[in-house]
Amino acid sequence: MPHLSVEYSANLDDRADIGTLCERLLKAVIATDLFEVGAVRVRAIRCEHHAIADHRAENAFVDLSFRVGRGRSLTEKKRAGEAIFAAAQEVLAPLFDSPHFALSLEIREIDPELSWKRNAMHARLRNSEDQGKGQHV
Amino acid sequence: MPHLSVEYSANLDDRADIGTLCERLLKAVIATDLFEVGAVRVRAIRCEHHAIADHRAENAFVDLSFRVGRGRSLTEKKRAGEAIFAAAQEVLAPLFDSPHFALSLEIREIDPELSWKRNAMHARLRNSEDQGKGQHV
Amino acid sequence: MPHLSVEYSANLDDRADIGTLCERLLKAVIATDLFEVGAVRVRAIRCEHHAIADHRAENAFVDLSFRVGRGRSLTEKKRAGEAIFAAAQEVLAPLFDSPHFALSLEIREIDPELSWKRNAMHARLRNSEDQGKGQHV
Repeated sequence: MPHLSVEYSANLDDRADIGTLCERLLKAVIATDLFEVGAVRVRAIRCEHHAIADHRAENAFVDLSFRVGRGRSLTEKKRAGEAIFAAAQEVLAPLFDSPHFALSLEIREIDPELSWKRNAMHARLRNSEDQGKGQHV
Repeated sequence: MPHLSVEYSANLDDRADIGTLCERLLKAVIATDLFEVGAVRVRAIRCEHHAIADHRAENAFVDLSFRVGRGRSLTEKKRAGEAIFAAAQEVLAPLFDSPHFALSLEIREIDPELSWKRNAMHARLRNSEDQGKGQHV
Repeated sequence: MPHLSVEYSANLDDRADIGTLCERLLKAVIATDLFEVGAVRVRAIRCEHHAIADHRAENAFVDLSFRVGRGRSLTEKKRAGEAIFAAAQEVLAPLFDSPHFALSLEIREIDPELSWKRNAMHARLRNSEDQGKGQHV
């Protein structure tokens, strides 16, 4: 954790750079200072088939689901949400110029009693020498 | 919101029309009159790799996840679920003829305090002139 | 139910066998004896775009989401989680040799009041003659 999943309609292939969106979302999450760098996983899921609103061919969406471990206050989670949503709006700004796009974000907490994890990146990233390579972020 | 995600096993490519399924699900959601047209986003996620039940090659599934904002009663949510499930069963009816298919639906509510959205379609669809183009739905 | 979804970064294509992972996870779920064989659906979702941790190109993840119906105790759910996570760790063991991989699992319960299902496999699998074909699992 945290996990940020980006579902998007495939008709955005030529209208949005989803790779860049993922990068910017990663930066936004890390910049909140609420999460450990090695734990942040952003990914996008392309949805070839979709049917949106009044079903015009140009209708499109990006929907973000952010799942986090317990341990942050509601205020902190809201702050993370604001930062993520702002980053997404910035990257996707041109899409709002036409009345065929919707962006959304939901945050949900993971039950710590029903969660398992093993992360080989932490040891590397918690090492100060490697942290000097922060430019990778 | 609402968001309807359809996960399906890729071995349905030649046995089901997932594009039509999305269209029919969109119509079913809108016909409940519980949701604003511009907010409904149906999409399908194709799962290339899968392992189902007794792992026969023909085993297949369609799993629907419907996420909605707060504000509808349990009765209304159940009514929406019934309508969505009925539509899915109708489109996928031939798949039930052989004992290798499972269909499922879950509804889950989104926490309004941890939800953000921006929708460029509403302004267009709330305009009465455009609503006359309801045939797009 | 139960549903086990495997999200993974596409840069694992040459480093992990996701088909085998699905098979092994299916076996692990069934071996818990907590779930009916015909109900278990494991599938993987490939994420072409991703941005992970310090954003090195080799950073990768596998994230498991296990959704189950009500009716099992916390202890039983934990036992299922342990079994699933152990199976995933075994299949993906080589990935932990380099400090660029993270594995995670979350279990979440489905609200029985907002769940619908129809399964054509049960009739076949509940038939004792067919259960003799357990080698398919």
